[in-house]
Amino acid sequence: MTKKTGKQTIIFNNPPHILSYVAVGGKEEAKGPLGKHFDTIFPDPYLGEASWEKAECKLQYSAVKTLLEKSNYLPQDIDIMFGGDLINQCTSSYFAARDLQIPLYGIYGACSTMAEALHLGCMAIEGDFAENIIAVTSSHFCSSEKQFRFPLEYGGQRPPTSQWTVTASGAVLVTKETGDIIIDKITTGKIVDKGITDANNMGAAMAPAAADTIKTHFEDTKLDYDYYDLIVTGDLGKLGKTLLDRLLKEEGIDLSERLDDCGCMIYNIDKQDKHCGGSGCGCSASVLASYILPMVKEEKFKKVLFVPTGALMSPLTCKQGESIAGVAHAVSITKREEN
Amino acid sequence: MTKKTGKQTIIFNNPPHILSYVAVGGKEEAKGPLGKHFDTIFPDPYLGEASWEKAECKLQYSAVKTLLEKSNYLPQDIDIMFGGDLINQCTSSYFAARDLQIPLYGIYGACSTMAEALHLGCMAIEGDFAENIIAVTSSHFCSSEKQFRFPLEYGGQRPPTSQWTVTASGAVLVTKETGDIIIDKITTGKIVDKGITDANNMGAAMAPAAADTIKTHFEDTKLDYDYYDLIVTGDLGKLGKTLLDRLLKEEGIDLSERLDDCGCMIYNIDKQDKHCGGSGCGCSASVLASYILPMVKEEKFKKVLFVPTGALMSPLTCKQGESIAGVAHAVSITKREEN
Repeated sequence: MTKKTGKQTIIFNNPPHILSYVAVGGKEEAKGPLGKHFDTIFPDPYLGEASWEKAECKLQYSAVKTLLEKSNYLPQDIDIMFGGDLINQCTSSYFAARDLQIPLYGIYGACSTMAEALHLGCMAIEGDFAENIIAVTSSHFCSSEKQFRFPLEYGGQRPPTSQWTVTASGAVLVTKETGDIIIDKITTGKIVDKGITDANNMGAAMAPAAADTIKTHFEDTKLDYDYYDLIVTGDLGKLGKTLLDRLLKEEGIDLSERLDDCGCMIYNIDKQDKHCGGSGCGCSASVLASYILPMVKEEKFKKVLFVPTGALMSPLTCKQGESIAGVAHAVSITKREEN
Repeated sequence: MTKKTGKQTIIFNNPPHILSYVAVGGKEEAKGPLGKHFDTIFPDPYLGEASWEKAECKLQYSAVKTLLEKSNYLPQDIDIMFGGDLINQCTSSYFAARDLQIPLYGIYGACSTMAEALHLGCMAIEGDFAENIIAVTSSHFCSSEKQFRFPLEYGGQRPPTSQWTVTASGAVLVTKETGDIIIDKITTGKIVDKGITDANNMGAAMAPAAADTIKTHFEDTKLDYDYYDLIVTGDLGKLGKTLLDRLLKEEGIDLSERLDDCGCMIYNIDKQDKHCGGSGCGCSASVLASYILPMVKEEKFKKVLFVPTGALMSPLTCKQGESIAGVAHAVSITKREEN
């Protein structure tokens, strides 16, 4: 008998605990509504490094370093780190792990990577393979735009459907039994591809995957639709969020009142001219660490379904005519009840 | 109490079983000593597709498809797939999983990816999160050379230390309790970086990581050095294998008689003009599935330590002066003993 419920959901018997969390970001993130909740803000997009890629690596390194300090842990106290980023060959994560000397499993799930890190990390804890794991992801506006779209110097026009890659890293320390917050269920997503080919319309590419995972989560768990205070997707942005709401309603699921999206939450979208909002796997990770987890700890939210979404967008395969597939994984987060 | 032993090793209480395995490859692999053991050979490097990337995706898709047929399983019988490849954004794995409709966790560990897939898959099985998982990786000479080194049309000269990216995919079906072969221990590797910067000398970049993981495995488990019949590294190639042997001897560990390397095994290196041998995350995966696992099943090898090694080589960070870090994860494979 496995701990699987329904098709794609796992319910933990001894839910892993979230002990602490850190969000670090750049100056655009500082200007957003969550800026004041970030642990560290780096006003210089280079973070004092010689390239944007090195800057992103430092972002991730500093998130983990701060997390260890905040938790009073040493690198050797961490059994495994699950880390990923958007840069080819996951260099931000691998170089950060190299410098920290923590064993790493490098993962790639585009903007859904933080969910994948938490899933695998929780399995490691609940399965008794580790006492302490860190889940960490990062993204950087400059390194991502360069890799996925155009060189920044080119000054390409951004269409209204585009999203702004967040310059941030979020890191979460998950342990066996020492935190106030628990992860009690996870739902692994399937890849959903509705044929979107526009690299500047990722919300549309990801919304069907988010709808599929959320629907499957409720089917698998048989929970009522009002079970969660907040169902917060990774970074669908404004357009994708509207599409998700519509797709769910078409399935007879009305979650409008409790749906939100990390890409919509991280910026003052109109004032900061961010078109459809934020994106990048540092987006959901830093919103989680700066806002969602503190709110759960303070019981402002009692139960949250965190659903990072990824657009499996490759500049190369897009040019070869392939569509952009979407994926979304769900993480159920709640305050630990006192025994 | 976790199942961890020593610093980085996990010993499974109910070792996951390997039920079946498939290796598919191209015409160069067919000419090698293991060619006759491959399940499918595709003589056309395009596999009938319009690009090398699409060809690699088909390679991985066909490995999984053949694995399911061979095992009499349907895609919906597989709880989770752990898949990776060398192509940016792991597109071979994600598109294969999309077309198969199996939930995927995309992973990246360069040529060590098959070990990472088996590690995470075994944790999912032993932790009771899944009944059946597939671990799969692929690589393709043409898509890799283009991405990591030079366009093939350029006809760049290959230096003597270079390795030949294997065009192959290997897939393994791991289940709770239905196979003849078990995975009883795993050792997660740390990232080791000795400052190598030559993208055509990956053996030197990876050998120190392999030495570190193998040494740690023996320290953690307190096993005798003659415990394994075969200790087979991912793809260090000829030079890397020699370096590994020397590094281990410097630590007082003599494993010369039982060391081999997938990169040395897959080709008739001199006759096929493959310089230092094979590489790519399809190399260790296809050698595992075509040769190592059948040999364990037939008890020609009783105990094998499979140690895929990865060179965390990014064309971009190499140009920015970063070195090539190495990583290696170990998987202890043995025949299941009858009760």
